[in-house]
Amino acid sequence: MEKGRVEAFSDGVFAIIITVMVLELRVPQGEHLAALRPLLPVFLNYVLSFVYLGIYWNNHHHMLQAVERVSGGALWANLHLLFWLSLFPFATGWMGQNHFAAVPTALYGGVLLMAALAYWMLQNALIAAQGEGALLQQAIGVDWKGKVSPLLYLAAIGATFVAPWIGQAIYVAVALLWLIPDRRIELALLRRGE
Amino acid sequence: MEKGRVEAFSDGVFAIIITVMVLELRVPQGEHLAALRPLLPVFLNYVLSFVYLGIYWNNHHHMLQAVERVSGGALWANLHLLFWLSLFPFATGWMGQNHFAAVPTALYGGVLLMAALAYWMLQNALIAAQGEGALLQQAIGVDWKGKVSPLLYLAAIGATFVAPWIGQAIYVAVALLWLIPDRRIELALLRRGE
Amino acid sequence: MEKGRVEAFSDGVFAIIITVMVLELRVPQGEHLAALRPLLPVFLNYVLSFVYLGIYWNNHHHMLQAVERVSGGALWANLHLLFWLSLFPFATGWMGQNHFAAVPTALYGGVLLMAALAYWMLQNALIAAQGEGALLQQAIGVDWKGKVSPLLYLAAIGATFVAPWIGQAIYVAVALLWLIPDRRIELALLRRGE
Amino acid sequence: MEKGRVEAFSDGVFAIIITVMVLELRVPQGEHLAALRPLLPVFLNYVLSFVYLGIYWNNHHHMLQAVERVSGGALWANLHLLFWLSLFPFATGWMGQNHFAAVPTALYGGVLLMAALAYWMLQNALIAAQGEGALLQQAIGVDWKGKVSPLLYLAAIGATFVAPWIGQAIYVAVALLWLIPDRRIELALLRRGE
Repeated sequence: MEKGRVEAFSDGVFAIIITVMVLELRVPQGEHLAALRPLLPVFLNYVLSFVYLGIYWNNHHHMLQAVERVSGGALWANLHLLFWLSLFPFATGWMGQNHFAAVPTALYGGVLLMAALAYWMLQNALIAAQGEGALLQQAIGVDWKGKVSPLLYLAAIGATFVAPWIGQAIYVAVALLWLIPDRRIELALLRRGE
Repeated sequence: MEKGRVEAFSDGVFAIIITVMVLELRVPQGEHLAALRPLLPVFLNYVLSFVYLGIYWNNHHHMLQAVERVSGGALWANLHLLFWLSLFPFATGWMGQNHFAAVPTALYGGVLLMAALAYWMLQNALIAAQGEGALLQQAIGVDWKGKVSPLLYLAAIGATFVAPWIGQAIYVAVALLWLIPDRRIELALLRRGE
Repeated sequence: MEKGRVEAFSDGVFAIIITVMVLELRVPQGEHLAALRPLLPVFLNYVLSFVYLGIYWNNHHHMLQAVERVSGGALWANLHLLFWLSLFPFATGWMGQNHFAAVPTALYGGVLLMAALAYWMLQNALIAAQGEGALLQQAIGVDWKGKVSPLLYLAAIGATFVAPWIGQAIYVAVALLWLIPDRRIELALLRRGE
Repeated sequence: MEKGRVEAFSDGVFAIIITVMVLELRVPQGEHLAALRPLLPVFLNYVLSFVYLGIYWNNHHHMLQAVERVSGGALWANLHLLFWLSLFPFATGWMGQNHFAAVPTALYGGVLLMAALAYWMLQNALIAAQGEGALLQQAIGVDWKGKVSPLLYLAAIGATFVAPWIGQAIYVAVALLWLIPDRRIELALLRRGE
């Protein structure tokens, strides 16, 4: 099955989620700088979610480049990932508008956790469709980031009920972890001489 | 006529409908778990509509892959399908916000019914444009799912006025019916050695 | 200059405008059929605008298929067309929510008129970029529909202040005029043996 | 790395930002022409932002056409640019709804400034990925527009606190400066015989 339309559809959904999120930044009443102050937590949270969606788009982009075939199961695994990503605007808005209170912060972590699991499922579905010794499998290797992130999200969700800022600090830390460029797939493609 | 732009435009509309639907999940007032409770029916309904749109996208994807030519009539049949799909966010929101009351549940079934008929019309328009003995026609075969679904939607709309939950149960059942992978087109493509 | 990205960007904008329009159909309060009644004019107007955007997308699709080169001027002519089309949701919503009152009906006609002029400018910019005797120029020929439509819109805007329903009837008539398939470009492509 | 998906994703985001902006033009209460009057500043500001986004899309389109390789760093530079562009609807709405008051006008200039810097960073990241003597580097040359614009935005932000209209006049002037077609990249592509 062709992978072109999967990429096009996913790009569309990524583009819309990332842009719809900004609609939670509602135009404030009042023309002075003070009118922007209540928007600050929403804005900071928007930046964090934008970075997370950027990381997902980047990794999704790389993963599909290392793939030749897309199975019917992978199509649904991809939709499942997009489902959890589509909840980002909601979770971002609730956490931002409540100034990072405990429950919204935990819910945000829950969406991050489910998206990470969905990404891992998609990765497995794609590897299964490529057959033994596939490029993607070699490129991913031990995948320690993919294994550690869900544990960190779980820790963050728990920590949220001690003090929300610990949870938020972990979310930021995981984002930074992923921002460090991951050259596994690029290197594997290079080695293959592509 | 090229099919590339039809796919691209349809993917765009699919991506937007699926994402705009989540905007009906409005960020609640209050920072406690209880604030999420009234959103539960809207959320469950969002999941159902997401699955339906995923099924339509998947089938649309497969159908156009088995097609070589797109006629002017098929372009309009495609727009007609997208019209009914574009009403999903409205129907989903109304049904969810009224906790699955009878009339909104019936309206939701009406949109499902019209989308199913529009899909069937698009399928016929595409087959007509391919000429006799086309791959798509062979792949679809008896098409019992496509024939049974509209009848089930009609039954569900009627059942809604007895008890809304029967209608909803039928909507869920039809979705599950379609989720079972439909390998007709994939097999037909394989047999052709593509 | 490549035309692929112009098509992709335009498709994106078309897809979004067509979907954003449906957001004006706000989920009503109340779970009975009566709650839908005030939405009826908004819905009918949505259907009309959907058809208009479908016509524009179809013609845009055909026009760019008959074109080889896209100039910098044509890029801006295309953006100018998209600008007027982007006002459809606003004009549609205002006309629908005021039950087709005179001024909103005239404004709707004004947006239709400006879009028609912008389309005509884009057509000229594309023909100019192809050089003498280009396929697109031959295909378009006398272009009586393109010349008559703006005059009909002007007549409709005037008639609106006599009785709004005359203006609306003209809008519907022009849409039907364009719905009749326009095979000029398809025929010209066929004659060329493409 | 392939540039196709970067273009597709960016086109999606551009298309959505440009269309979401129009949602700030809320359908007014009342059916008379007077109901549109308070929307006039929002509308004028929408036109200005539409032109700016059109310029960015045009330049982005040209820049990526002159490029062969896209590095991981350029992907993030591109996301960074899209981040600032995604704030256009917010900044446009706030400035328009406050009838061009000083602080919203300055904030609008701030977003323009950050977008200009982000564009310049993306340009550098792309040049770095092409190697010495690349087509893009030759095409851009001295890049006086790119260097002067940020200074003009800074001047406009300062001038805003003297009189907001001076700032706005500078924003319009910079837009006109860029609207004058920039044929550097087209000429460089021609010279190369592409």
